[in-house]
Amino acid sequence: MDKERLIIDKFSNSFIGDDGAVVAHERGRLVYSKDLFCEGTHFRAGWLSMEEIARKAMLVNLSDAVAMNAEPKFVLLGLGLPKNTSAAQISALRKGFADVCDEYGVTIIGGDTIGSDKILLSVTIISRLRGKAVLRSGAKNGDLVAFTGELGGSLKGLRTLLNGGQVASNSRFKRPVLKDKFFYAAADKINAAMDVSDGLGTDLAKLCAQSRCGAKFIKRLSKHELNSGEEYEILFTFSTKNRAKILSLARKTRTKITIFAKITKGKFKSNARNHHF
Amino acid sequence: MDKERLIIDKFSNSFIGDDGAVVAHERGRLVYSKDLFCEGTHFRAGWLSMEEIARKAMLVNLSDAVAMNAEPKFVLLGLGLPKNTSAAQISALRKGFADVCDEYGVTIIGGDTIGSDKILLSVTIISRLRGKAVLRSGAKNGDLVAFTGELGGSLKGLRTLLNGGQVASNSRFKRPVLKDKFFYAAADKINAAMDVSDGLGTDLAKLCAQSRCGAKFIKRLSKHELNSGEEYEILFTFSTKNRAKILSLARKTRTKITIFAKITKGKFKSNARNHHF
Repeated sequence: MDKERLIIDKFSNSFIGDDGAVVAHERGRLVYSKDLFCEGTHFRAGWLSMEEIARKAMLVNLSDAVAMNAEPKFVLLGLGLPKNTSAAQISALRKGFADVCDEYGVTIIGGDTIGSDKILLSVTIISRLRGKAVLRSGAKNGDLVAFTGELGGSLKGLRTLLNGGQVASNSRFKRPVLKDKFFYAAADKINAAMDVSDGLGTDLAKLCAQSRCGAKFIKRLSKHELNSGEEYEILFTFSTKNRAKILSLARKTRTKITIFAKITKGKFKSNARNHHF
Repeated sequence: MDKERLIIDKFSNSFIGDDGAVVAHERGRLVYSKDLFCEGTHFRAGWLSMEEIARKAMLVNLSDAVAMNAEPKFVLLGLGLPKNTSAAQISALRKGFADVCDEYGVTIIGGDTIGSDKILLSVTIISRLRGKAVLRSGAKNGDLVAFTGELGGSLKGLRTLLNGGQVASNSRFKRPVLKDKFFYAAADKINAAMDVSDGLGTDLAKLCAQSRCGAKFIKRLSKHELNSGEEYEILFTFSTKNRAKILSLARKTRTKITIFAKITKGKFKSNARNHHF
């Protein structure tokens, strides 16, 4: 299928049209992230419009870059589309990509389109570090642990969809909302971070494993908050001495944050289940 | 599924383990290429071993970089694997990736693994330009047009497989052979190039369209040579004044090349069919 001409080539810019995209970079550190977003694995046919699919596939990838304190710049798109995909669907898909590109100032520089039974998207994001890289491995003993926004909405939306119900277009399952403004502002005060994709419990366990530390809850969270995956809120840790500064930056950027645990020595074992579809 | 731990994390290096891979680059030009390689689209179950699948998915991507005069450095892997994939199959897949990484000096820096009905691979390659970027758009009026190696073997292998036959492990359909040594040596004498992925006729039409030129055949080629896709030989053009130098570099690198056309003014229309699976 030559849907490539209909989608990727429409983002016409000086990068597109050859085997690869040539990009001149200044000396510096780049961050590369890549995620697959596929029908049957991440969503079922009918759950999301083509525009929502494009939007979410982009945002879950941008989220990885943001949570490392990197600013997304370029995108490579791999698309698998069923042969019966209509012109209107392709146009909706393109609009979803284009809207996110506009909002985040990123450019699609190339990719590949194939025919496939199910819809599949592979998104690679090339980002520039804004300052220090915030890693999963940076948590320090005594750090406070917090998350942005509200958790649970994605799992709630997923359950409704699994039960055959309808979900509003602003449901977190359909439309992640990145907290890039807060995170970029606070990044130099943050020791470790990652986005909440598998569920807070599972993701905190990953962060602790990478940081070789434990964690103790100082606030009771609901099962929904602990287990809801694909939230794309940010889980992060910071020194107690930066608490006032972090809270002030959260207020300034109108970002809700919840401090819920403390980093300890030892190991952290989550008994959280991860609720992906 | 957490097959990510079984595959990508096994390529343990300082890049892996976070949301994205941080890479420090010197100032310079990088080339980004991305291709999907999927069961049902590029091969059927049983046609290729897991090792051959990994190898071919990597090589078709490295081929894009080579044909632009770029040296592949880093790889991001997106893998979709059926739930019943065995440990032996995963190990074979890993060996296929590792062998290509060793041969070409590339490092897998991250990626994503999901469960899926069919095998799907999305490979992103980050390469460094060795000198000038050789593009599809560089062909000049009067240039000679040539291709490396032999064409037709991939289509022959594909037809045998489609008819239920067996194909040797060194068939071009199973195992592309890149002509990187010749191409890197000759690149500064080459005006335009691309790899032969859709078939020589179709690919020459693409090159001519990008270069806004036509082409006239000066040698008769068989239908097999013109229509065989997924060859990963290199189609390239060069000035007649560099003919002796190109032929000498081909001899030195033991690379067969066939000069078969001349770039003209006007347009080139191929009536070639492209034989992908």
